[in-house]
Amino acid sequence: MIKKYVFGNPFETNAVIENFDECKDKIKEFIINETSSSFEFARQLDDDDIIYGLGQNVRGINKRGWIYESYATDEGRHTETAKSLYAAHNFILFNCSSPFGVFVDAPFKVTFDLGYSKMDEAKIILHEKNFKIYIIYGENVNDIVKDFRKAIGKSYLAPFWSFGYMQSRWGYKSSDECRQVVKQFRENDVPIDALFLDLDYMNGCRVFTTNEKDFPDFPEFVSEMRQQDVRLVPIIDAAVKAEKGYEISDEGESLGYFCKDEKGNDYVGCVWPGYTYFPDYLNTEAGQWFASKYQYFTDMGIEGFWNDMNEPAIFFSKKMLEDLQTEIAARKDSPFDAGDYFNLRHKVNFLWDYKEIYHNVNGEKIRHDHVHNLYGYNMTKSASIGLEKIQPDKRFLLFSRSSYIGMHRYAGIWTGDNQAWWSHLLMFLQQLPSLNMCGFLYVGSDIGGFNSNTTEDLSLRWTALSVFVPLMRNHNGTDRPQEWYNFIHKDWFKDIIKSRYRLLPYIYSEYLKAVHNYDMMFKPLSFVFTEDSYATQVEDQLMLGENIMIAPVYTQNAKGRFVYLPEDMLMVKMFGDQIETEEIDKGNVYVTVPYNCVLFFMRKGTLIPLYDSAVSTEKLIKNKIKVLCFTDEGDAEYEMYFDDGKTKSCEPKKLEILVENESAYCNSNDIQITVLAEYMNNIF
Amino acid sequence: MIKKYVFGNPFETNAVIENFDECKDKIKEFIINETSSSFEFARQLDDDDIIYGLGQNVRGINKRGWIYESYATDEGRHTETAKSLYAAHNFILFNCSSPFGVFVDAPFKVTFDLGYSKMDEAKIILHEKNFKIYIIYGENVNDIVKDFRKAIGKSYLAPFWSFGYMQSRWGYKSSDECRQVVKQFRENDVPIDALFLDLDYMNGCRVFTTNEKDFPDFPEFVSEMRQQDVRLVPIIDAAVKAEKGYEISDEGESLGYFCKDEKGNDYVGCVWPGYTYFPDYLNTEAGQWFASKYQYFTDMGIEGFWNDMNEPAIFFSKKMLEDLQTEIAARKDSPFDAGDYFNLRHKVNFLWDYKEIYHNVNGEKIRHDHVHNLYGYNMTKSASIGLEKIQPDKRFLLFSRSSYIGMHRYAGIWTGDNQAWWSHLLMFLQQLPSLNMCGFLYVGSDIGGFNSNTTEDLSLRWTALSVFVPLMRNHNGTDRPQEWYNFIHKDWFKDIIKSRYRLLPYIYSEYLKAVHNYDMMFKPLSFVFTEDSYATQVEDQLMLGENIMIAPVYTQNAKGRFVYLPEDMLMVKMFGDQIETEEIDKGNVYVTVPYNCVLFFMRKGTLIPLYDSAVSTEKLIKNKIKVLCFTDEGDAEYEMYFDDGKTKSCEPKKLEILVENESAYCNSNDIQITVLAEYMNNIF
Repeated sequence: MIKKYVFGNPFETNAVIENFDECKDKIKEFIINETSSSFEFARQLDDDDIIYGLGQNVRGINKRGWIYESYATDEGRHTETAKSLYAAHNFILFNCSSPFGVFVDAPFKVTFDLGYSKMDEAKIILHEKNFKIYIIYGENVNDIVKDFRKAIGKSYLAPFWSFGYMQSRWGYKSSDECRQVVKQFRENDVPIDALFLDLDYMNGCRVFTTNEKDFPDFPEFVSEMRQQDVRLVPIIDAAVKAEKGYEISDEGESLGYFCKDEKGNDYVGCVWPGYTYFPDYLNTEAGQWFASKYQYFTDMGIEGFWNDMNEPAIFFSKKMLEDLQTEIAARKDSPFDAGDYFNLRHKVNFLWDYKEIYHNVNGEKIRHDHVHNLYGYNMTKSASIGLEKIQPDKRFLLFSRSSYIGMHRYAGIWTGDNQAWWSHLLMFLQQLPSLNMCGFLYVGSDIGGFNSNTTEDLSLRWTALSVFVPLMRNHNGTDRPQEWYNFIHKDWFKDIIKSRYRLLPYIYSEYLKAVHNYDMMFKPLSFVFTEDSYATQVEDQLMLGENIMIAPVYTQNAKGRFVYLPEDMLMVKMFGDQIETEEIDKGNVYVTVPYNCVLFFMRKGTLIPLYDSAVSTEKLIKNKIKVLCFTDEGDAEYEMYFDDGKTKSCEPKKLEILVENESAYCNSNDIQITVLAEYMNNIF
Repeated sequence: MIKKYVFGNPFETNAVIENFDECKDKIKEFIINETSSSFEFARQLDDDDIIYGLGQNVRGINKRGWIYESYATDEGRHTETAKSLYAAHNFILFNCSSPFGVFVDAPFKVTFDLGYSKMDEAKIILHEKNFKIYIIYGENVNDIVKDFRKAIGKSYLAPFWSFGYMQSRWGYKSSDECRQVVKQFRENDVPIDALFLDLDYMNGCRVFTTNEKDFPDFPEFVSEMRQQDVRLVPIIDAAVKAEKGYEISDEGESLGYFCKDEKGNDYVGCVWPGYTYFPDYLNTEAGQWFASKYQYFTDMGIEGFWNDMNEPAIFFSKKMLEDLQTEIAARKDSPFDAGDYFNLRHKVNFLWDYKEIYHNVNGEKIRHDHVHNLYGYNMTKSASIGLEKIQPDKRFLLFSRSSYIGMHRYAGIWTGDNQAWWSHLLMFLQQLPSLNMCGFLYVGSDIGGFNSNTTEDLSLRWTALSVFVPLMRNHNGTDRPQEWYNFIHKDWFKDIIKSRYRLLPYIYSEYLKAVHNYDMMFKPLSFVFTEDSYATQVEDQLMLGENIMIAPVYTQNAKGRFVYLPEDMLMVKMFGDQIETEEIDKGNVYVTVPYNCVLFFMRKGTLIPLYDSAVSTEKLIKNKIKVLCFTDEGDAEYEMYFDDGKTKSCEPKKLEILVENESAYCNSNDIQITVLAEYMNNIF
């Protein structure tokens, strides 16, 4: 049951697509305090209350004990005291005596003080007065999430190929360099399905152009790679170089499709191309105009895009830089003290202000900060709608850096520019269930870390966690290249990536289930083992679907880790083509995890479908499935979802797989199923 | 056995005080590669090799898997990919088939690539060619550390009062505000022994002055606090405001005691006071001149100092700022692109260069970067020698932000400006044994975190760990005050701080043992349980002495943690005056740890001496000791070191405490010993 409350005259975000009547009851879950400029919703917390949610934000699965802000921020060096990351996902879930969810549908800055100011109080602060609040009630946390997810609509369905391993680096300077990367994979039989192109493929960072010098004959390059089962995925930056003679710039200018400054002139900031305009994605026409340009690439055979810099990231505002230059020149001969210096440094580091920017929404002039969190969402929504116009039933790969709830219907996300920090590996694990609650299922993080130089062991462990994650992309932009072949233990990486391809039938099936059943792919243990009070404490393990548990290693120099088993489980260690299994009793156990190992735990009575590994998703032999099972009294079963992986209209098929007495059966004659009997438990 | 190798003509650091003949053998532990400007020492690593050491630096107890630089750096926002912190502690210890230690005695930048570039190789890179290397051999890691410690000389002996709880904050703006802080402690019977004064006590940040307006009649204020058992500890910043008419500035200028620029003029940077000079502490005369000024405070009854900003921290160089202003003015009308902007931002953020600064050492002009790591060391060494001249036998509290091995003989250190991050709490635990190896025993970190706003639970957990740490100081400088009375659960903090005072006989005894026996107070588990291969993996527990093990909680929202017990132990939970005990079997166990709990584990056959808690160290009744014991066949014993806590010349006394059949005995008639029989194990 969902109650919708409307305050003032909210901007329509289209986050929620189910219709709810406005509820006029008092909100009983919070004490509400209205100030001259804000609303505060406060609630006492019991010692054992847990708060889930907030999608892509910092800290643990349990969000208690920190203060968060929803205000999409380009901050690649985020630490545990960051408050905002790249997205604004305003759903939180109170797991208390009568659990309930809250969705704060507000495109401006919202503060979630979840036991920070006072350990025993949660406070949501709306910094403006026009918004909607949805309160979601249900029997338990799982039901609440499902109801919320139905209200916000079905999640984006990614193509099957985008579940392959994908390589990226801000640093591939030419098509020849790209060819060399792909060659390393193909010559060494390390699987790969896509190569990403960062800024350098463009002509001077002009969006919808290619660099003819270093990437000559781009369409030919696209098909050459495609013949090797490698899709090229170009970056699409949100802003447009401001330049006379550059078609996109001229068009947008003359059509009035760029954001304005206060006086109504096109606002000029600076991003990678230099001075830039910012398409007004909140204006539907402008968004569709920009989206139509993707055809430049789809005509070449491009099937995937990543929308970047769309918080929007602005290095500086032209006007503010000029003001600062004037100020510095004027005070050239006065002495500087420490305060003057720190002032200068702060100004230089934060040389833009969203309050300088204006949108045109149906003729209404709206200052950007009031609708800030919708910018990346609307860029990507436009792109999705535009791509649908180009090829209506085709599943494109599309994901975005900035997002808001609602965008999950159109695209996936990656967790933005992260760091080669062990703490960011753990944080990513903790973000997974939070993102799923908010509808984002096709998600991933930059394996190895985007910023800072990585280490071999961090890259190995990060790859091993990402085996389970839909978007499996290694990406970075620092001195140290982090493709597997730049490290010493190349075979260890190969083993891990091969394990991904073997596990794809299970991973893709669980993804499809989550999409079609409005479910979470990754759950905190407490969502599954609801009666286990210790499960609420586990912040470094997750359930993948209801049947397997993952417990990655996330500390340096560790030969293994402690794992909490809420019940007896089968421990599975995959090493590419090799598998080891061992039954482990309920309790706490120290598990050794070699660097080339992909570790997971199976619940009793279930099974995992596996493919033989292959060098790309297209080379997988999908009608041959091997089954790894942990039987309960000799039986095990699994409902495997699959589809064509290509079209939007395709309904998921459900393969019922059953194991009895070491034999496997399923409800399809097209699929050959073999039990990996050598790993079967012999307890009966 | 220690071998000393000399390369070129090293600058004398006085780190090592034992005499060793120069060894002319080949160094067999490393392959040495000489380049035109550097030396590289490389060594293959086996999978199980562990590298300890590096004192105050980032990452784990095992230093493998990262690249470190010894180059003292003022970087308060250090993450796991930092390379240098505030100190340069060039001792590393290879725990391999034939363990050995290495001390790189070089005051310039040294790189320790410990399995970063190649997972299986350690490389030490000396970026200049004049240095000494000591290789320390021994039967085991403990022997090696002891031999090294003997070579570098006995560690600083802190006064007993400095083992009390100490409160600090950059933000006490007046003596009245200080009085209010102390009042909170005294009125609520929360123990305290010292209050720290940050910048604001000075007149405009001029070193060796007081702010007459906000801290009127400073000597009177000192004695007023002293009457309440509270020592005031002022900050002493390294640099001197450059200002005509300010005595210290004028004197240093006329005596030629400040560092110079290339042309021989006094170098001018900017620190807190504005434009500043930098005393040339490497010039003994200059150092002694500066040190003599401490008498300004000792004459008022001040007994402790913290030397800060002595890397040295420089906000900007006057010359470089002027150059930048000129550059900005000149290009005012040319457009900026992204590269121009990032250049500007980098310049503004790093607006100084140590290569601009010169020292005068016995008449020789030495560029600062060649001897950079000795600056804070020599400031603090001078201060120690100066204080000894003032009161020869008195133990002053003295600690420094920057340091080099050798400084451990003169003072303690704190770990510099940290962050209110859970990761910094764990990092501090991991730094403790590394610091001890390098001779630094009187150490501590800013409880709660210096930068970033803390949370109540982080402050509680940090206080609980710091109960065991010699320097127990809560300090911060951000918006959120973090004295205990600003949080909700005031009694929880009180319980923890009271536990500190109860445990002081053990903590101080283990400190004295470490000082006088050249031992480590905090050891990795593997140093004690040498045959336990899992012990080498434990990165979040420590032995405090050989008899107790600590295992703090260092994650948010955690109700407890996993603890690894290498053998059966007695779990002790202290809650101020309350104690709970439980025997726990060897193995992995999940332990609940309430927020007001101080948790530790005792080995069998040992005992812990306790005082009754008191509100200051002076109020402790030291001739009444209570004994908590975990007997082995009914017996337990402990050798407790103690001394007068005030004088340098005082030799430690050794109290032999023995428990038999629930009765306690000791070799002194002055001390009354009682067994806490209610907690005795009843296994016999």
